[in-house]
Amino acid sequence: MERYVRFKYGNNTRFGLVEGEKVAELIGEEFPNFKKPGITHELSLLKLLAPCNPTKAVCVGLNYKDTILEPGAKWPVEPLLFLKPFTSLIANGENIVKWPMTDHLNFEAELAIVIGKEAHFVPEKEVYQYIWGYTIANDVTAKDLQKSDGLWGRSKSFDTCLPLGPWIVSGIDPQNLTITSYLNGEQKQEGNTCDLIFGIEYLVSFISHITTLLPGDIILTGTPGGYGKTLNVGDKVEIEISEIGKLTNQCVECKEGWSMPPRNKEHIMYSL
Amino acid sequence: MERYVRFKYGNNTRFGLVEGEKVAELIGEEFPNFKKPGITHELSLLKLLAPCNPTKAVCVGLNYKDTILEPGAKWPVEPLLFLKPFTSLIANGENIVKWPMTDHLNFEAELAIVIGKEAHFVPEKEVYQYIWGYTIANDVTAKDLQKSDGLWGRSKSFDTCLPLGPWIVSGIDPQNLTITSYLNGEQKQEGNTCDLIFGIEYLVSFISHITTLLPGDIILTGTPGGYGKTLNVGDKVEIEISEIGKLTNQCVECKEGWSMPPRNKEHIMYSL
Repeated sequence: MERYVRFKYGNNTRFGLVEGEKVAELIGEEFPNFKKPGITHELSLLKLLAPCNPTKAVCVGLNYKDTILEPGAKWPVEPLLFLKPFTSLIANGENIVKWPMTDHLNFEAELAIVIGKEAHFVPEKEVYQYIWGYTIANDVTAKDLQKSDGLWGRSKSFDTCLPLGPWIVSGIDPQNLTITSYLNGEQKQEGNTCDLIFGIEYLVSFISHITTLLPGDIILTGTPGGYGKTLNVGDKVEIEISEIGKLTNQCVECKEGWSMPPRNKEHIMYSL
Repeated sequence: MERYVRFKYGNNTRFGLVEGEKVAELIGEEFPNFKKPGITHELSLLKLLAPCNPTKAVCVGLNYKDTILEPGAKWPVEPLLFLKPFTSLIANGENIVKWPMTDHLNFEAELAIVIGKEAHFVPEKEVYQYIWGYTIANDVTAKDLQKSDGLWGRSKSFDTCLPLGPWIVSGIDPQNLTITSYLNGEQKQEGNTCDLIFGIEYLVSFISHITTLLPGDIILTGTPGGYGKTLNVGDKVEIEISEIGKLTNQCVECKEGWSMPPRNKEHIMYSL
């Protein structure tokens, strides 16, 4: 089992390997072609970034047996996919902004698969050769917009709505990990990756037959069931996954000037 | 009016400015901070790439007044957004692959806005400061999967399903451009950007309030109405936009080994 971190050091971004309380700096373009030049840092002194820099985050909806279906929804017979843009990424400890466009943010605890090698048309039995490791993701969603849009593009794409980290763990069995989420210290979700409807191997193979996965790309595997996941300003959300660790983020108010006018009827040529 | 191209020269990728039959090489990180070192190439001898390298493509559904609504669909009161991954990008002249996972590809002619400057919370009246220019996009879609999934993530994300180009045109009025598409020489769609439900200014402002737009990012503004847009192996699709030019791509068979097993019932824990 190895833990990889990404951090800023001076003006540079570096990967590192956690060794006890130390981090050994890694040099090289990407996993697995890293070299250890012998420079170490104190883990507690580093400001960790999101642990990878994905070109895309492919996400799976409705993928746990205990998910409560919304009225009218059906169980998927194939993985239901959507994308989140990498501009929504934040690190462990960074803030989730409650943007004025939404009245109802929620959080969703998920295991994220991190790709280590370009993956295209990968058979199920070979997927582990393409996986770098696993990390924790929070698929923050504007539930009101998800419902009114029907499509999930807007509601899943807001800046700061993809907390990821704190590190990538490799060399673990992803098929029996406990996922727990807490809102202000109170447990809200509990699940286990053994209850995934579409498992790790199938997901990576399936997605690699649609879109080429690049090193650092991530797959969010879906969130287990659980009620009362609304996120309000001031709330702290913690997601814990066994063998990986804990991802903690707080929800804060938007302090920037909101420059969009109220909905302008001139833009709406057709009414419902 | 200026035309920007992107091309491979030796091992390097370069931007260039079209000057008659020549292309003046541009050096610099990105628009508008380019410098012209005085090197020119013959346009006809260059292999043009997709004209930019977006970190994301934000797309708008149902955005023309003449779009025929599918049964049960409603006119949007706000832009309906979805994303396409940059791995789906191909250039003018490259091939759209008909992947085995879909039985029904179609094509959708669209005006694409290319972002020139990081855009976050941009007021409507300032959007043109953030726009580099405009190009032609084909939002190739697996219609069967779009319907069966409900979500549009899978059906819009296949490799090769985002033809873009041939160049970026700046300094034109985007609000009165004719869009025409042809299948094997026969006209299939005709529209004008003056019929956009949500116009250029509103779209850029709206999207910049959701997700930070980075230089090179693109916004696909939606496709005008039109029937019979199925794309089969061997078909040639041409999209023409006035003042920009023509984007031509052919649909070809998948020649790679398809390594996904037939749908495996073991993965499906719940039946419908």
